[in-house]
Amino acid sequence: MIKLKATFMDFELGLPIVMMNSEDARDLGVFPGDRVCVRTGKKTEKTAFVEITKHIVKEGYLGIRKEAKEKYGVQKGQELSVRAVLKPASVEYIKKKLDGYELKAIELEEIIRDIATNRLTDIELGSFVSAVYTRGFTDREVIATTRAMVNEGEHIKWNKKFVVDKHSIGGVPGNRVTPIVVSIIAAAGLTIPKTSSRAITSPAGTSDTMEVFCNVSFSTDEIKRIVGETNGCLVWGGALDLAPADDKLIRAEYPLSLDPEGQVLASVMSKKKSVGSNCVVIDLPFGDGAKVKSFDAAKRLAMKFKKLGEALGMKIECTITKGDQPIGNGVGPVLEAIDIMDVFSGRGPQDLSEKSVELAGVLLKMTNKGDEETARKILESGAALDKFRQIVRAQGGAADKDLVGMLSKKKISYYAKKTGTILKVDNLVVANLAKMAGAPKDIGAGAYLYFKRWQQVKKGDKLLDIYTSQDYKMEYIKKLLLEKDAFVIGSDKDMTVEVV
Amino acid sequence: MIKLKATFMDFELGLPIVMMNSEDARDLGVFPGDRVCVRTGKKTEKTAFVEITKHIVKEGYLGIRKEAKEKYGVQKGQELSVRAVLKPASVEYIKKKLDGYELKAIELEEIIRDIATNRLTDIELGSFVSAVYTRGFTDREVIATTRAMVNEGEHIKWNKKFVVDKHSIGGVPGNRVTPIVVSIIAAAGLTIPKTSSRAITSPAGTSDTMEVFCNVSFSTDEIKRIVGETNGCLVWGGALDLAPADDKLIRAEYPLSLDPEGQVLASVMSKKKSVGSNCVVIDLPFGDGAKVKSFDAAKRLAMKFKKLGEALGMKIECTITKGDQPIGNGVGPVLEAIDIMDVFSGRGPQDLSEKSVELAGVLLKMTNKGDEETARKILESGAALDKFRQIVRAQGGAADKDLVGMLSKKKISYYAKKTGTILKVDNLVVANLAKMAGAPKDIGAGAYLYFKRWQQVKKGDKLLDIYTSQDYKMEYIKKLLLEKDAFVIGSDKDMTVEVV
Repeated sequence: MIKLKATFMDFELGLPIVMMNSEDARDLGVFPGDRVCVRTGKKTEKTAFVEITKHIVKEGYLGIRKEAKEKYGVQKGQELSVRAVLKPASVEYIKKKLDGYELKAIELEEIIRDIATNRLTDIELGSFVSAVYTRGFTDREVIATTRAMVNEGEHIKWNKKFVVDKHSIGGVPGNRVTPIVVSIIAAAGLTIPKTSSRAITSPAGTSDTMEVFCNVSFSTDEIKRIVGETNGCLVWGGALDLAPADDKLIRAEYPLSLDPEGQVLASVMSKKKSVGSNCVVIDLPFGDGAKVKSFDAAKRLAMKFKKLGEALGMKIECTITKGDQPIGNGVGPVLEAIDIMDVFSGRGPQDLSEKSVELAGVLLKMTNKGDEETARKILESGAALDKFRQIVRAQGGAADKDLVGMLSKKKISYYAKKTGTILKVDNLVVANLAKMAGAPKDIGAGAYLYFKRWQQVKKGDKLLDIYTSQDYKMEYIKKLLLEKDAFVIGSDKDMTVEVV
Repeated sequence: MIKLKATFMDFELGLPIVMMNSEDARDLGVFPGDRVCVRTGKKTEKTAFVEITKHIVKEGYLGIRKEAKEKYGVQKGQELSVRAVLKPASVEYIKKKLDGYELKAIELEEIIRDIATNRLTDIELGSFVSAVYTRGFTDREVIATTRAMVNEGEHIKWNKKFVVDKHSIGGVPGNRVTPIVVSIIAAAGLTIPKTSSRAITSPAGTSDTMEVFCNVSFSTDEIKRIVGETNGCLVWGGALDLAPADDKLIRAEYPLSLDPEGQVLASVMSKKKSVGSNCVVIDLPFGDGAKVKSFDAAKRLAMKFKKLGEALGMKIECTITKGDQPIGNGVGPVLEAIDIMDVFSGRGPQDLSEKSVELAGVLLKMTNKGDEETARKILESGAALDKFRQIVRAQGGAADKDLVGMLSKKKISYYAKKTGTILKVDNLVVANLAKMAGAPKDIGAGAYLYFKRWQQVKKGDKLLDIYTSQDYKMEYIKKLLLEKDAFVIGSDKDMTVEVV
């Protein structure tokens, strides 16, 4: 234990960090990333990570964050007792997982709790996601992790027999079925408190598209109010504190694009469980450019979701759907909003409309409220559109607006270079074009597709429009269009797709 | 690409970091830990990691480190172009290793270069050490990593047939053979530019002990001067830029106590190669409380060192030595310095003296300069002490000083609770007592042992003195002495060591 004087630092890095001079660190026997316990008052002790400096903090001082002034009443120059503390037990459990052992429920709880409360360093988080990636999770570990994630966050409770929900595994541009499914289901009288994400690596998440119509950030109390009024909601999950450990794990998986299956299962199911759902359809689109590459992989994953659902007391059905080309015509927030309104009014892209009706049908069947035909009738009767308008109004917005007027003002069109059949529409190239155009931040930017796979085109037919707001982006887009084929055109009879 | 105004931040965290408002980050499409390229002048572009804030940096601004002002002439409010850049290729190679594939030499070079130049985040570093830990390194990977580590740092060249060196794998308290071995070898006319470490988790490193006598921080030019004058040196490796990637990897391994074998091999050998050695004895003490637990493990490791040496054009001999109890009597910088001077004057602890002579003998044999008996004569004749005095003088110090007068002033003695044979002296308990007393920062603190294994003691015999400077530390030490047995006393005939 040593005594140091408080000095305030101008930084905030997510983790609780204190900075000390290398001489004091040596005295205390601590290294960067070690933990210390700082006694700020008679009864208040706080654990923090150590950063070591030679110059910024002088010997005899401890650099602490400014918020400590308000939170714990620490004054500048106040004497603080600082002692080294051991690593939390969870660090040992991470090592155990690296060594290939199955973790006990209690050990996973400890890890998840420490992640949720910022008690692990980035190096330790990197090791944990790497351990789960290389060693995998057993079914028991997935169940324990999911439960622990649920326990660490907020819960919403509903006094209903069925609370239904829907999740799509990502990767397919334009796959904006959620607002349509939620509207059909809520119109059928079922409760569907749907939370969605914003785009991380895609041109738009459901929340980005919904924000074209209305606010998406609400507290759990506001969600209860909206669902109470309309049976459904279409809000951003990131504004809530459901399964906070999951958000931090996703951040740690991002740099290496690690996406271990066990983590995906726990992540999806913990969010559904926290929001109070008990009846969920999980959509698994598969194919080139989708997250799930093959039918077999989708089926394997589906079985795991169902097993996990059973352990958590939730009914799960999985739909394995075509995901090897974009769904709908628009890719980007406003363009997808246009698709949605077109589907509601019966004009919409046939694939988006059909997929929404099918997923809604599965949910209606699970709750004995009908089937695909019921869903289709609700959509075609206009009841789904009415419900969508209601939900959007309850979220402080308006469904009927001049969406076309909101499109970005500069446009590049792309034409077929030859006559033939569309053999492929590339998910990744379309997504990259839309992102390069400015989606999702530039809500009016994105790509609009005029053709899909197996359709016949003639040389010179327009295949694609790209909307953007900025001239310099047009240059990049033109280059990408030259370099990568968004559309592969060939002959029906050809068996060879590409010669490499 | 976006344009932001420069604002200076009061932090420095080892990595190049810039801070931007969450709105700008969203615009640019970057997430925490992503890389951006900042154009600070017509020709100057710098890559940095992004931290995202809602409050600290306002929209339209980029928080950069103060040193950018001097280094790149950036002015407050200056407009900077910021664009997102892709992860370095090394991030893909780390993932490849996590997936269990062997990495090519060129891939390991890229990883080591990016580590040496701070281009990887802590999450990525954590993943890399975890990958090496779980997947292991093939012999080829160890060789490539060692070469890459050498290439990234400074080298010292000597115009000599033999440049000899010595390394001990750690964990055994009091194992301070290095100053004695170096003095014998230098006295025999061989070149031995020895770099050592400071304590990381032990009560003293060789550099901590040498600092009792003289300065240990020198540049490579100064090392050449010292070795030119005396044939040897005893300096701190941390002051040099030999194998900088290794220092950063050791930092990343520390939190989880990961110590993958491949990494240990590359770490030791890269430092030896960088310093210009071509003839090295590697000491592998084994036993309870040592880093290497068994004879078999030591032998396996020895074979790997020899193989790696061959690939690097270095002659390697390994000594597998007893490491299941402390070596010498003193544990702590001054106490170990006393042991060393006692060995030089012929009074010293027999185990420390014998081990030093044996290791020096191996080096003399490797270079055809003699054997163990030659080493013993050099020590007993006083030539080794003369050489030690010369080296210490060349490093700006004095070998003959009142070491006993430098001991910390408070002492706790510990006595045998029964009559019998010492069955065990616990490495870890002794190390913890010395650290708790204040070693290595309090150089006069530590433990002094009066007995070793297999010796007979009577109830009430003094077993141990502990030196410390501070009263409050005495309380902790007394508690530890009650809780843990530094000495196990029993009967020669008993077969049971402990009943658990």
